[in-house]
Amino acid sequence: MAITYELLHTCKQTGARYGILHTPHGDFETPIFMPVGTKATVKTLENQEIKEVSDGLILGNTYHLWLEPGDDIVQLHGGIRGFSKWDGALLTDSGGFQVFSLSDIRKITEEGVEFRHHKSGAKLFMSPEDSIRIQHNLGADIIMSFDECPPFDSPYDYMKQSIDRTIRWAKRGLDAHNHPDTQALFGIVQGGPFIDLRTHCAEELINMDFPGYSIGGLSVGETKEEMYRVLDEVTPILPESKPRYLMGVGTPDDIIEGVIRGIDMFDCVNPTRMARHGSAMTSQGRIPIKNKIYEKDLSPLDTECDCKVCTTYTKSYLRHLFKSEEYLGPRLISYHNLYFLKNLMKNIRNAIQNDQLGDFKANFFSKYYK
Amino acid sequence: MAITYELLHTCKQTGARYGILHTPHGDFETPIFMPVGTKATVKTLENQEIKEVSDGLILGNTYHLWLEPGDDIVQLHGGIRGFSKWDGALLTDSGGFQVFSLSDIRKITEEGVEFRHHKSGAKLFMSPEDSIRIQHNLGADIIMSFDECPPFDSPYDYMKQSIDRTIRWAKRGLDAHNHPDTQALFGIVQGGPFIDLRTHCAEELINMDFPGYSIGGLSVGETKEEMYRVLDEVTPILPESKPRYLMGVGTPDDIIEGVIRGIDMFDCVNPTRMARHGSAMTSQGRIPIKNKIYEKDLSPLDTECDCKVCTTYTKSYLRHLFKSEEYLGPRLISYHNLYFLKNLMKNIRNAIQNDQLGDFKANFFSKYYK
Repeated sequence: MAITYELLHTCKQTGARYGILHTPHGDFETPIFMPVGTKATVKTLENQEIKEVSDGLILGNTYHLWLEPGDDIVQLHGGIRGFSKWDGALLTDSGGFQVFSLSDIRKITEEGVEFRHHKSGAKLFMSPEDSIRIQHNLGADIIMSFDECPPFDSPYDYMKQSIDRTIRWAKRGLDAHNHPDTQALFGIVQGGPFIDLRTHCAEELINMDFPGYSIGGLSVGETKEEMYRVLDEVTPILPESKPRYLMGVGTPDDIIEGVIRGIDMFDCVNPTRMARHGSAMTSQGRIPIKNKIYEKDLSPLDTECDCKVCTTYTKSYLRHLFKSEEYLGPRLISYHNLYFLKNLMKNIRNAIQNDQLGDFKANFFSKYYK
Repeated sequence: MAITYELLHTCKQTGARYGILHTPHGDFETPIFMPVGTKATVKTLENQEIKEVSDGLILGNTYHLWLEPGDDIVQLHGGIRGFSKWDGALLTDSGGFQVFSLSDIRKITEEGVEFRHHKSGAKLFMSPEDSIRIQHNLGADIIMSFDECPPFDSPYDYMKQSIDRTIRWAKRGLDAHNHPDTQALFGIVQGGPFIDLRTHCAEELINMDFPGYSIGGLSVGETKEEMYRVLDEVTPILPESKPRYLMGVGTPDDIIEGVIRGIDMFDCVNPTRMARHGSAMTSQGRIPIKNKIYEKDLSPLDTECDCKVCTTYTKSYLRHLFKSEEYLGPRLISYHNLYFLKNLMKNIRNAIQNDQLGDFKANFFSKYYK
């Protein structure tokens, strides 16, 4: 078994889970946030910094690395770890989300998906077996089943047809997966807003006994209430002994609400994408650093943060870097934002262990969304 | 006296100088190369990295910092050092070069230069006293006289008139300079290709007894032979006991030829600018990393280099970063290029001390320009 999960404590105030995820490249306390290194680089940062601002488990994107530089080239290096020289643990998605979100023209058949390259327009095809093969080449510790990720507002009939195919694709991926001792393949629960479809999908995947379960098709434009409602219904169905990964979710409120609903793993490009636009996550909420009010502000981004950016630079200097379009600006804010989330996750885990996550949430929200 | 220079050895093979530059923020072996941090950041790098790839003395640009964020804001932080948190030594130029190279519309009077902002078009004015005042606010250890930098092919009569004004401006700067114990003001020798004008300018500046002398108006489009000819004639006039700074020069061949002609200090944006375009400086010459031949090349950029980039990453990965337009690409090549120059300077200093700079040059060129 490539990974195992140990549930160590359940918060008496909220029901949130504290546990340990054991992987071939380290043991990780959960709930955990995983920074995204789409193209084998967490944008702007180097490995030493990624270690400082993560818990040691990061994401790579199968779709992007398959197209550029090609999984064959990554595999020449022995996988993403040899390619980018990241020596922590890794998770890759299946490519499914990008196939459906980035390419306009596509044809879905039982066999797989035919689509066009999101830049060149070249005709491409990906099957569940292709996704697993590519993920073998990329070599992450945790890999994902190839799924269809339909729009949240798809009609019931389409969604039903889609999850049935996603279930069949999950089985095909499982059959194609021949590295179960070094790579843990997760099943992905789809079904949009429809609880009966979500439930059916989850039950079918649980019957296949995956080492972990992902919840996909959320944070795709639906309201937060809809997302939380789906989580309320779906996570209780998932086995207690397996990790649960809420894909693509990474705002502080969604993380806290997800944890309260039993989620163990999160990822999102948001902290680094926001950073590139000059938006910093702080204990007092978002700071748009380009704003003129920070021109002569000699205080740090976040007085409660002990990261190297907050203990070194002034808002005035950070604003200057953005106004001057200097590379260092996005780099420093990316570092801070990820550190902020790492710290948030640590605080969340402590609160769970102390049975105080409800109090922590109220206190955090009162400052972050004041 | 803010700085002093000790000449410790003259290479018997070439006449090149090895010495020590004592500054308020450290003592530096010369010849030295100074990375350029135009807007209070050496592009893409953070202070710890700049320490690793420099000898501890870097440049800031007066013109750029005056306009953005404004020297008042830098001064609020106690100067560039407080602004960017660089704790090494610093040199600023006078702004003169940028006034003449970046702005099209200008009117030069005895008082100073009227010109338009290179982006906004706003009308601006800079006098020698302004330049010194701004450089006081920026707070570098070594500062420059405000000079006119006419095109190298300006007619003799114009050049004569220009250097006479530059000499008068140097005197005015000296009179305005009231921090001589913490900031060393250098005079700048101009005169284009005309040796009699260069000589006259140098002699007048020497009479004012600056703590160091810069040679300006070179590497501005003239041939290398013309540059070397000017250096051949001008450096012998300069006092042995003062440092000599060849402004804006930073290719390996120009550095070696400059050192042989008695130059102690160099700066250039070239290593970091080249890096942002994917061009790496290596012991075997330039490597255009985006080239397809590096697609599957698992070797380091430079097998003779022990920098963290060369001891960690493959050419294939570096190429991927550039093809994917990832921030990390320019960052890693900037680091390597500056490290390459730092290492070159160390080798040059060793060669001078061993009276073997001629041999070193022949050996270096045989590989770099093979």
